[in-house]
Amino acid sequence: MTMQPRTIEAATRVNGLDMAAAFATIDAIKQNPQLAQFRFRARNHWIDGGENRSTIRDFYGAGREDDSRSEDFVFTNGEPPVLLGNNEGANPVEFLLHALAGCVTTTLVLHAAARGIAIRSISSELEGDIDLHGLLALDDAVAPGYREIRIRMAVEAECSPGELDELMAFAQAHSPVCNSVCRPVPVVIERAR
Amino acid sequence: MTMQPRTIEAATRVNGLDMAAAFATIDAIKQNPQLAQFRFRARNHWIDGGENRSTIRDFYGAGREDDSRSEDFVFTNGEPPVLLGNNEGANPVEFLLHALAGCVTTTLVLHAAARGIAIRSISSELEGDIDLHGLLALDDAVAPGYREIRIRMAVEAECSPGELDELMAFAQAHSPVCNSVCRPVPVVIERAR
Repeated sequence: MTMQPRTIEAATRVNGLDMAAAFATIDAIKQNPQLAQFRFRARNHWIDGGENRSTIRDFYGAGREDDSRSEDFVFTNGEPPVLLGNNEGANPVEFLLHALAGCVTTTLVLHAAARGIAIRSISSELEGDIDLHGLLALDDAVAPGYREIRIRMAVEAECSPGELDELMAFAQAHSPVCNSVCRPVPVVIERAR
Repeated sequence: MTMQPRTIEAATRVNGLDMAAAFATIDAIKQNPQLAQFRFRARNHWIDGGENRSTIRDFYGAGREDDSRSEDFVFTNGEPPVLLGNNEGANPVEFLLHALAGCVTTTLVLHAAARGIAIRSISSELEGDIDLHGLLALDDAVAPGYREIRIRMAVEAECSPGELDELMAFAQAHSPVCNSVCRPVPVVIERAR
């Protein structure tokens, strides 16, 4: 199912999203598929121990370099004492849960809006299991990453329980972060010389 | 290769990490493998449109609930105008790049320290490609997530270029976030009723 306005009236603000703009974007992409190509970026530098900091600002999308951000977003990774840090920030695997929660939520809100379904509230609790034998290279049979991530999501929406179940499954299948976690994504590391 | 102190002298602070504590942790895990089991958590709630907010604080690890954090970490996802938002925060796929950068960096710093290699600096630039045909469900053949992520990393370390290449490959292979992106991780979404 692709995003199509079900009625003319649907092309207004739904769930805080300007659906007229959304459908205009979709029409533009159908005319010129190249507009759908986005390239996101981050820069990071090490501070000390388990502390490092990223800046995020520019990206490419919709056929141009974006210039909408007047300041950098800055985020600090840290580690708790049990992982040799001083809680300088959340740690990277926790930031991954934040990214996943946000992406599934936004994807759900977007596709609900496309169907004309008003969302009243969404809250979610995530947990994921990691066995440090992997990170520490103590057992090559143990994957260093998450074994599984569980999301328990409470949604209040103006639709039937069946529609909501279908919408949640649709959001899971179409969320970029969820798809990047569920599916193997090639990561290429090059050393700058 | 597992983490082993190469010399007694290595069991001190290296790259900002207390390696005596690190090797004590490893010894404890070897005695009781259950101590390596960690469970990380995040809670998120939708605000409006593409804006939502996560809180991160508690986790389980090393055989107990951690209580080292006196305050929540709070992070806001947003979207740029071209993606129907107001730049309320970085967006989820950008937070994923931040998590990935930080995790590869920390894993590199840790395993360098375990080998007694002093790191002077690390900086990295990440970029990843996303085709919106996936998110928007305009083409089922297009994956919604990243097609590929590239990390260009500059490292100054007290080792040979060959050792550094090997160390970077080792960090990539053992980074929990990198492994969670490279490898398919099951994500289970349950609706709270």
